[in-house]
Amino acid sequence: MNKSYSGYICQDYKPRQDDLVAEFFLEKGRGASFAEACQAIASESSIGTWTEILTMKPEIAERLSPKIFSLNYSSGIVKIAYPIALFEKGNIPQLLSSIAGNIFGMKEVKNLRLEDIDFPAEYVSSFKGPKFGIEGIRKILRVPHRPLLGTIIKPKLGLSPEGHAQVAFDAWIGGCDLVKDDENLTSMAFNNFEKRVKATLAMRNSAEKITGERKAYMANITAPYKEMLKRAKFLKKQGCEYAMVDIVSVGWSALQELRNENLGLILHGHRAGHAAFTRNPKHGISMLAIAKLCRLAGLDQLHIGAIFGKMEGKRFEVKKIGEEIEHKIVHKDFGGHVLAENWLNIKPMLAVCSGGLHPAKVPLLLKALGNDIVIQAGGGVSGHKGGVIAGAKAMRQAIDAAMNEIPLKVYAKMHDELRTALEQWG
Amino acid sequence: MNKSYSGYICQDYKPRQDDLVAEFFLEKGRGASFAEACQAIASESSIGTWTEILTMKPEIAERLSPKIFSLNYSSGIVKIAYPIALFEKGNIPQLLSSIAGNIFGMKEVKNLRLEDIDFPAEYVSSFKGPKFGIEGIRKILRVPHRPLLGTIIKPKLGLSPEGHAQVAFDAWIGGCDLVKDDENLTSMAFNNFEKRVKATLAMRNSAEKITGERKAYMANITAPYKEMLKRAKFLKKQGCEYAMVDIVSVGWSALQELRNENLGLILHGHRAGHAAFTRNPKHGISMLAIAKLCRLAGLDQLHIGAIFGKMEGKRFEVKKIGEEIEHKIVHKDFGGHVLAENWLNIKPMLAVCSGGLHPAKVPLLLKALGNDIVIQAGGGVSGHKGGVIAGAKAMRQAIDAAMNEIPLKVYAKMHDELRTALEQWG
Repeated sequence: MNKSYSGYICQDYKPRQDDLVAEFFLEKGRGASFAEACQAIASESSIGTWTEILTMKPEIAERLSPKIFSLNYSSGIVKIAYPIALFEKGNIPQLLSSIAGNIFGMKEVKNLRLEDIDFPAEYVSSFKGPKFGIEGIRKILRVPHRPLLGTIIKPKLGLSPEGHAQVAFDAWIGGCDLVKDDENLTSMAFNNFEKRVKATLAMRNSAEKITGERKAYMANITAPYKEMLKRAKFLKKQGCEYAMVDIVSVGWSALQELRNENLGLILHGHRAGHAAFTRNPKHGISMLAIAKLCRLAGLDQLHIGAIFGKMEGKRFEVKKIGEEIEHKIVHKDFGGHVLAENWLNIKPMLAVCSGGLHPAKVPLLLKALGNDIVIQAGGGVSGHKGGVIAGAKAMRQAIDAAMNEIPLKVYAKMHDELRTALEQWG
Repeated sequence: MNKSYSGYICQDYKPRQDDLVAEFFLEKGRGASFAEACQAIASESSIGTWTEILTMKPEIAERLSPKIFSLNYSSGIVKIAYPIALFEKGNIPQLLSSIAGNIFGMKEVKNLRLEDIDFPAEYVSSFKGPKFGIEGIRKILRVPHRPLLGTIIKPKLGLSPEGHAQVAFDAWIGGCDLVKDDENLTSMAFNNFEKRVKATLAMRNSAEKITGERKAYMANITAPYKEMLKRAKFLKKQGCEYAMVDIVSVGWSALQELRNENLGLILHGHRAGHAAFTRNPKHGISMLAIAKLCRLAGLDQLHIGAIFGKMEGKRFEVKKIGEEIEHKIVHKDFGGHVLAENWLNIKPMLAVCSGGLHPAKVPLLLKALGNDIVIQAGGGVSGHKGGVIAGAKAMRQAIDAAMNEIPLKVYAKMHDELRTALEQWG
């Protein structure tokens, strides 16, 4: 074991108020003890390297050394407190290069997962957070209590701008509040972004007149940064309230800047690709940590999982994420990998449930996550045997039933669209 | 098994010249057959969803359906050809949201890894690629054949701008061509970016005068996009040749834009964090695929592993990546997950080896990867018992010995610094 990887374990250390605390799951690699692997992580994520170096001065080590204040070989849980000076405020990429950087590749570890991060007040307040948050979104859409209903235009790719706008219109007429592009739909040869936005917003205006409800379109601006910004500004100019971004594919540098631009758009985050590093329970980064970073960065809405849908995602985990992004103060919970957090000035971010949802799953979702969610059904709307309007109606009926605590089967007796949906997927 | 996930298997299909081909490793999830899991991936990464939808028209399916033209249950290898119309040219985030998006989280798969991507000519030519590439870098540094020698200033964090510049000076004087910030060093309270750059470049100028060699500084500009761009422009103005970015933490949207800005800076990519999704051989994305995307995006240099260093990374894999990023035409190799690729107008990207290197490892590296590499030693320079100058000298001596095919132990007899290094780490 190399000397430069030692001296970080301080089990009697109590994290200072201005420390940043990270919780990891660790499985040691061959040739290292568990304690040695812990030291290697603490070192590589802060000031050390694989060998002793002459350029390291005692005063630097004194000032900047992280402290491993908790480590447990049997659970694999390791908690490290980092002096805040190790991080550049307002710079998420720099934070990740430190505590979610080289350490995943080290030979001293076999598996390593960043489970959670507790940001100190000084760090939290260097971020803008969501511009609108739950309250702002509800105000714009004039839906004070009910879960919001969204759909994703299907097929994912292939429709023309006009075809896309038509499906959107039907979804809005049927009762959707929100209509969303799919994660891989940007500006295509067969479906140009600007044409699609214009056609879809024209239909939005009609749908608002007909229904008397506010309706919104979440257009996917995912692209290299300048093009993404151009598309966002185009949306604002066209009277769109939202912009949607694929957060993982786009990355933190552009995501943060999009919020910093202060465009007056509600930012919706799709998480396509997250499961490449969040799914393995032993290695990578937890979705919880990603969600917290999104709230800091300033997304207004984020996909957190659907529990009962087509994607992997445990009920307990999704519920925790929901609480973490929507509450002001989160108390620590040793079982569930949630460090304490005080979100201070940062508004709550709205949780979005999506992926394989249909009416039969609505009551379960509301029970698990409460009313402050967006329920998105793509196939669960466009796949309805009666068509898109009927599909949207059935979803809205399911929400109405669940909010009034009426069993779906009972409610379906008086609501044809819901009945059809339950027969089809129930 | 849902109907909408069927019809994609066409084992007699021969990919068209303008198809984009992706190779995956797949382990099926519970409740699905291998073929069904393949279909689910093909569907979700293109035009389908979990249920049949009325809005899907036969002409869309005809035009845009991907073809699973090869699948092998025992090896887990699946190859899918996608019509190029499914992708927006010049938009890497959109590509990843498709073929490296939702599919990692689907219940039909237990493990899934994107192994390789073969881009058709039409797609390749929508990217700029490296501005300088290997030839351009060698010309600027006036080093036509020898591997370039770099160091990373250590400790990773803690030095003042002046302290940083002093270590850089010593490294250059000792024989390093390149000096690099560490991945977590951006603009810190104790080490401001602009001050560090000015101090370090002043030392660079002195070192060039003293040694008669060209010397370069790779400053880490990792930050939210506008700040990153501001830092890059500052570097250019100060006469710096390079900018360094943490590609994973920063993300594709900002990375592509940085190249598109055409700043006249050599772009160096550090890959901190990649192992969160590249390390598991069964799940995530291969480093090979990431490296190919970096070459498209236009990085000039990229960390590909050190084979013999502190980080995980198999010899065979690192070698393959080296070939992929530095060659013009890559032939397919079924064993090694390298699909064929013709890079057309895209220049070769220089491979950087880093992480736990020291003089004793130099001959092995050159033998494995050839001369077109940057050999970076951080601790392997700053950790030398004789100090930084001696550390750089020892590395340079090791390169000279290896290039002349003189065993290190023989060469060390006439070179004190190398001898010390071999005694210390050999």
